Amino acid sequence: MKVPILSEEYQIMIAPQGGGRMKSYRKELWFNTRTRRAFINITGQVEECLKESGVKEGLVLVIAMHITASVFINDDESGLHHDLDVWLEKLAPHEPVSQYRHNNGEDNADAHLKRSIMGREAVVAITDGKLDFGPWERIFYGEFDGRRRKRVLVKVIGE
Amino acid sequence: MKVPILSEEYQIMIAPQGGGRMKSYRKELWFNTRTRRAFINITGQVEECLKESGVKEGLVLVIAMHITASVFINDDESGLHHDLDVWLEKLAPHEPVSQYRHNNGEDNADAHLKRSIMGREAVVAITDGKLDFGPWERIFYGEFDGRRRKRVLVKVIGE
Amino acid sequence: MKVPILSEEYQIMIAPQGGGRMKSYRKELWFNTRTRRAFINITGQVEECLKESGVKEGLVLVIAMHITASVFINDDESGLHHDLDVWLEKLAPHEPVSQYRHNNGEDNADAHLKRSIMGREAVVAITDGKLDFGPWERIFYGEFDGRRRKRVLVKVIGE
Repeated sequence: MKVPILSEEYQIMIAPQGGGRMKSYRKELWFNTRTRRAFINITGQVEECLKESGVKEGLVLVIAMHITASVFINDDESGLHHDLDVWLEKLAPHEPVSQYRHNNGEDNADAHLKRSIMGREAVVAITDGKLDFGPWERIFYGEFDGRRRKRVLVKVIGE
Repeated sequence: MKVPILSEEYQIMIAPQGGGRMKSYRKELWFNTRTRRAFINITGQVEECLKESGVKEGLVLVIAMHITASVFINDDESGLHHDLDVWLEKLAPHEPVSQYRHNNGEDNADAHLKRSIMGREAVVAITDGKLDFGPWERIFYGEFDGRRRKRVLVKVIGE
Repeated sequence: MKVPILSEEYQIMIAPQGGGRMKSYRKELWFNTRTRRAFINITGQVEECLKESGVKEGLVLVIAMHITASVFINDDESGLHHDLDVWLEKLAPHEPVSQYRHNNGEDNADAHLKRSIMGREAVVAITDGKLDFGPWERIFYGEFDGRRRKRVLVKVIGE
């Protein structure tokens, strides 16, 4: 599977160095979805956090603080969200809940599995005070066991 | 899939800024499981690393240094661990090993696949000298090809 | 599932502290694969970035800037790459494209799903100016919808 790498396209940008002192910033975003499962675009909220932090170079951690939810980066397109939802339900079905041992007074084992596929966190680079994103990257909160208050941690670290 | 975001619940905390100088800390945790597959709660050991590092604001990387193992964050509940194990075995079965081309003198292709689902690393925020966790977040070492000495890297970066 | 942890094997190394000032570095790696799907070992290129950055302690983010591609860490073994490709095609098949709602003028919904399994980014620790890797860890660009120019972000943060 030999592939050409367009090495002439490399770009180098080195941030101003030598004077940086570390800053950090923390915010919680809270959600309460009406449906069991939901995908919510939180890119704008993370951008606000970044602005408030004053960090110009560094990284943002965006983390689902609950183990039945995800933070992930993908496309903001409703057809794809439908496909994702159907696909996750096929790989880790909610019903019958009796198939899972975790469901002992609970019924959310499938949510733990879905979150394992979609991931817990996104780590986003900050360059020149902005989320350093490709053209279609958007940050999503993925809820797999909603209808209760749950939260996402936004932690900004840098200079 | 419109959902209400409880914006009145946002919390802001900005860490003391302007004086931070970067510290880093590194430790390896070694494991040798008796079984081929195992999930081990390593939260306490990572907390010890954090204490030893002296870092108050920053992040911890917890990384499986072997490509047939995972580090992930989920619930410390034995029923769920059973469900995870059964589910991973269904998605990426060990037997028959002849189905995999990687198994040429080896028999652990399924472990590479299982680790791809569960992930290699967890990135944890540090706030005020503590792992900034939701109520049920615990860090696990996920072994998929054990019975030999393998290790996890804990790297702390911050101030 | 009780397992022995070889605590006598722990290693401690604390990086020189107290003088660090944060540096950051950024580079884009561009790819244009001949095939729809491909796995490309980019470890050497990331090592070059690290050298150029001058960072001795910190982390490297290696991020697929397109949402139909992945960056992941696994073995550089062609049999395993074959197994991964077959397995991903089984979990998220390309055909029939009509099964996906995203494929409305597009035909790459499966690439979004495959990338969800394999992940968007790798976070690698830097220790003493080197990628802090286990013996077989290699960084891969995973292309699931190629034959066009796409890129990976390498961001180095540290001191």
